[in-house]
Amino acid sequence: MQVTVWNEGLHERAKPEMAEIYPDGIHGAIADALRSALPDAEVRTGTLDEPHQGLPPELLDRTEVLLWWGHRAHEQVEDGLVDRIAARVLGGMGLLVLHSGHYSKVFRKLMGTTCSLAWRNEGERELVWTTDPSHPIAAGVDQPIVIGEQEMYGEPFDIPSPDEVVFISSFAGGEVFRSGVTFRRGRGRVFYFSPGDEAYPVYRHPQIQRVLANAVRWAMPGAPVVAPARAVKTPRADWHD
Amino acid sequence: MQVTVWNEGLHERAKPEMAEIYPDGIHGAIADALRSALPDAEVRTGTLDEPHQGLPPELLDRTEVLLWWGHRAHEQVEDGLVDRIAARVLGGMGLLVLHSGHYSKVFRKLMGTTCSLAWRNEGERELVWTTDPSHPIAAGVDQPIVIGEQEMYGEPFDIPSPDEVVFISSFAGGEVFRSGVTFRRGRGRVFYFSPGDEAYPVYRHPQIQRVLANAVRWAMPGAPVVAPARAVKTPRADWHD
Amino acid sequence: MQVTVWNEGLHERAKPEMAEIYPDGIHGAIADALRSALPDAEVRTGTLDEPHQGLPPELLDRTEVLLWWGHRAHEQVEDGLVDRIAARVLGGMGLLVLHSGHYSKVFRKLMGTTCSLAWRNEGERELVWTTDPSHPIAAGVDQPIVIGEQEMYGEPFDIPSPDEVVFISSFAGGEVFRSGVTFRRGRGRVFYFSPGDEAYPVYRHPQIQRVLANAVRWAMPGAPVVAPARAVKTPRADWHD
Amino acid sequence: MQVTVWNEGLHERAKPEMAEIYPDGIHGAIADALRSALPDAEVRTGTLDEPHQGLPPELLDRTEVLLWWGHRAHEQVEDGLVDRIAARVLGGMGLLVLHSGHYSKVFRKLMGTTCSLAWRNEGERELVWTTDPSHPIAAGVDQPIVIGEQEMYGEPFDIPSPDEVVFISSFAGGEVFRSGVTFRRGRGRVFYFSPGDEAYPVYRHPQIQRVLANAVRWAMPGAPVVAPARAVKTPRADWHD
Repeated sequence: MQVTVWNEGLHERAKPEMAEIYPDGIHGAIADALRSALPDAEVRTGTLDEPHQGLPPELLDRTEVLLWWGHRAHEQVEDGLVDRIAARVLGGMGLLVLHSGHYSKVFRKLMGTTCSLAWRNEGERELVWTTDPSHPIAAGVDQPIVIGEQEMYGEPFDIPSPDEVVFISSFAGGEVFRSGVTFRRGRGRVFYFSPGDEAYPVYRHPQIQRVLANAVRWAMPGAPVVAPARAVKTPRADWHD
Repeated sequence: MQVTVWNEGLHERAKPEMAEIYPDGIHGAIADALRSALPDAEVRTGTLDEPHQGLPPELLDRTEVLLWWGHRAHEQVEDGLVDRIAARVLGGMGLLVLHSGHYSKVFRKLMGTTCSLAWRNEGERELVWTTDPSHPIAAGVDQPIVIGEQEMYGEPFDIPSPDEVVFISSFAGGEVFRSGVTFRRGRGRVFYFSPGDEAYPVYRHPQIQRVLANAVRWAMPGAPVVAPARAVKTPRADWHD
Repeated sequence: MQVTVWNEGLHERAKPEMAEIYPDGIHGAIADALRSALPDAEVRTGTLDEPHQGLPPELLDRTEVLLWWGHRAHEQVEDGLVDRIAARVLGGMGLLVLHSGHYSKVFRKLMGTTCSLAWRNEGERELVWTTDPSHPIAAGVDQPIVIGEQEMYGEPFDIPSPDEVVFISSFAGGEVFRSGVTFRRGRGRVFYFSPGDEAYPVYRHPQIQRVLANAVRWAMPGAPVVAPARAVKTPRADWHD
Repeated sequence: MQVTVWNEGLHERAKPEMAEIYPDGIHGAIADALRSALPDAEVRTGTLDEPHQGLPPELLDRTEVLLWWGHRAHEQVEDGLVDRIAARVLGGMGLLVLHSGHYSKVFRKLMGTTCSLAWRNEGERELVWTTDPSHPIAAGVDQPIVIGEQEMYGEPFDIPSPDEVVFISSFAGGEVFRSGVTFRRGRGRVFYFSPGDEAYPVYRHPQIQRVLANAVRWAMPGAPVVAPARAVKTPRADWHD
């Protein structure tokens, strides 16, 4: 299992209090959690300020599941990189889009919608309810997951109708949000999971870590990742033979 | 538009306080609201204690949209009647299943699942959020609808994956529920809408009345209701002619 | 992996020519194929004429994936057995419904629709096209699978909108059919697969055998099968603690 | 009803034989058919060689349903125009994408996938089967629609799982194709319909014309088209008041 955790990595530098929560960055915290939960996985990280914006071709080309966290720098991610990521998803790579990644170029490109939502950042309690208890992403997960402080994300969430709704959250302020949803795009599996603002230690929450590990397993391609499909002219066959 | 509102009608008699909320029964309150909102509709009512359990064949056979409210007496509804209702839905009749009707024989028959849920009746505030603002059932509806007191219904709601999720509710206690969901079954359209316990005046709420009127319009068959489909032996055709 | 192949087993006796195609019955042919493809599986069979109609409680209770083939004797299957099978599916058991099993009591009960279709039995060539090449049920399957002689099943197929359409077939006469479709019902996974009439050696076709083995793997419950969900009264929690 | 039929309009000039089939272009033939079927509609046309590539802002801004036919010149359509069309769909405008429009920039942008397919152009008979007989787009449509000569489009069709599959086609060569599929994107309704190559008089076929008229009615926005959704910061409300 070749897993790469990408994080724009800007908040960590700008906000000293964040360095306390995530001394190795959001990507470091998630990568550590995945390494513990998935001993068979090779987990790498990438950040925006690294060469090739953290995803050089040789890394992307061997990644089987990519996790994506971004917030402030969505527009800085180069279109060419976004195209390569999307192409790899369509060819079979799994993609986990986290929290404010709902507005990333790659998620909007794969969804085709605005991916807009309602929001408010006041450190509210979030409850993450499982709506599909037999889904592998929900295996062993508390009902509900209780997150003490979190940014509120609320409906309407402007996404295509998901293939599966695994989690729905409520917030102390009363809002609701489809917080865990799946989509197949091409040959790839996409999971969007909203818990995880940079201001709260959400990715240190054991239950959130469990969901991410479950989702990596779920998103693994069942076959080698291929080039995305293209229209093929086919000869006429005589199927009677 | 031929609309019939069916209600088991037992709570109204047993609980004097309910007679204050619904002097003409739940069916009477809903029927009045529909008559006001849908001047073109002929709205009839039926209750369990009437001949043919309130749905004689001639009434069912001309009903284009049926609303169903039941709670205590699900098991008293005769299987033959349930079969006739389900057959008419499969042939094109619209069906609106209300609140505790999630456990009615006809809804379980059409869903094929247990239709179970979590619940608690403590008069909690419910917020009904629209997740699909362009859906005709949500036209002109507040975001959210605020219901001061309501029974809590919570996830997991054991239904097949709905065709559309129009509303998701939160409750003061923090639970969430897919409170407005659609299903096509055969040629008929089914809408389940959870707000509406007998102990609270929910069906007097103008926003709830609007949802019901919208849903009746949405569930109207586009063509005459027919007998449900049956397997048909077809001759071999030569489509080249 | 505890797998049970159920077959009504009537055609095999009535038609001597069928005994040539399936000397051990349809169930025997399928069970042999699964044993070869899935060495870890314990594969048992059951037929209508056996005690408990071939599915005694102790067998059903340990079955993780059940395959169901029936045609002439759907109505002879006892309602109590049908209820127990459906309950086990809702609790997590996988179910593969084969060919004329579209009209079985258990499939109609889980779908809630008539499950009717168009048909013609003239030994026509069927082509089974994969529409979702990344689906595990389609792994390693020819595009298309060519079946020389088969009963035609055609649209409209009166089922709820499937969760996934894996295969669509065409027939020499020009008809089309959603021949491989999935549904989650409760905690269980259901796969309907239409190729497989009793008059043709379809279950000896290596590609059909591959689909069935893939589907058994896909339908395996991810956790122990439980009793189907029931409505649960929940106390009010104070999630702030 | 404000309807606009857009056509790149290149084949008509390059191929004299096409001018016989469509003397007023594909757009002219479709517009005429819609004017006959929908007397309440104002139907306009646009082509690539016109100012603003045939869709000046004032025309796009009043269009309620847009039909799109393109083939050779997909890449010539300006990205800015594609963005404006997509934004208008997300805000509520209906969009009908026809035949080779599967590869148009706007359809790929809204789908997020490659939209690739298999194809062969040998003038084969296509049969268009209705899989959802109660769908308004299929109202009054033959089962099947028989098209004498047509380009073959075959599975796998690399699109997201459609909200609804209304039609599935077979071809003389044995292939199948989901030829009529719906998607909601944002507030807008999208219908892709594959019959209609430039080399055959498919848009003169009364049944194809009926489908297009039905689809225009179905895709009409139920409310004024708005700007697409954007993330909104919401104040905390006290819903108890």
